[in-house]
Amino acid sequence: MSISMHSASAPVFVRMLSNLLAWLDKAQAHAEARKFDPNIYLGLRLAPDMLPFTRQIQIASDAAKGCMGRLAGAELPKWEDTEASLDDLRARVKKTIDYVQGFSAAQIDGTEAKEIVLQMRAGEVRFTGENYLKHFALPNFYFHVTTAYALLRHAGVEMGKKDYLG
Amino acid sequence: MSISMHSASAPVFVRMLSNLLAWLDKAQAHAEARKFDPNIYLGLRLAPDMLPFTRQIQIASDAAKGCMGRLAGAELPKWEDTEASLDDLRARVKKTIDYVQGFSAAQIDGTEAKEIVLQMRAGEVRFTGENYLKHFALPNFYFHVTTAYALLRHAGVEMGKKDYLG
Repeated sequence: MSISMHSASAPVFVRMLSNLLAWLDKAQAHAEARKFDPNIYLGLRLAPDMLPFTRQIQIASDAAKGCMGRLAGAELPKWEDTEASLDDLRARVKKTIDYVQGFSAAQIDGTEAKEIVLQMRAGEVRFTGENYLKHFALPNFYFHVTTAYALLRHAGVEMGKKDYLG
Repeated sequence: MSISMHSASAPVFVRMLSNLLAWLDKAQAHAEARKFDPNIYLGLRLAPDMLPFTRQIQIASDAAKGCMGRLAGAELPKWEDTEASLDDLRARVKKTIDYVQGFSAAQIDGTEAKEIVLQMRAGEVRFTGENYLKHFALPNFYFHVTTAYALLRHAGVEMGKKDYLG
């Protein structure tokens, strides 16, 4: 018995992205109650040299897309980063969930030892599929999803660990 | 071929906790360069109703400890949450790494279907070992580790994604 590559990836991405959709709804309600434009969230940053809310969500989306596509050996679709409203961000998250769910277990399972090559600023980095999932794709995904959550909490949206975990 | 429960848990905890030790060193250096007491970090919060830095690290530590101990069926050691300095927090993180590394693969592997029962405020929650790891222990761990990172970045500590991923 063991965990398959598909069960260690797809359901994790789908669950956290679904939770993120619920956070966006709470953020919208908070903005309406406080009478500020909900699109204000898009530019919020935790530090001047950290990426804003919109980018956190776009990169979380790309982390899930890149992981599924690379493990399956699919051509990665290029998604333009043009989201300019909370509704656009919702659509991006939903598109990501659909993309993740578009892969069958058979396409992802058995990729533990598959070579994954990333082009980074510092040059090429090579992983096995398992190490790419565990030590790059998932931490990177959690980083951006959690930073998006932290930005909303910092902005006063009423949520807690239950909303985070779903 | 597949991922074992041990390989999906222990190396992930150890890697992120080791990265966290490096962030604490950078935080210390930042405090010294700016001439403020490094223990100031311990009380920082991203929002008044979020837990402070010290608790983020204690809970990340407990998430890793609880996951390994519960999967192995070990009696969980009770660690008093008495850390009052950056050095104390470093010691807590190192103790956690040692605890995680104290389990052999044989103690953790094969626990995918093991029943894990958590006592939550809302009552008892039951998971399989695999779902507990993927949908509770790991997201909870990443939540607190990433929030600790976000607090340090918010406080001006110079770090980036490379420090996060290690």
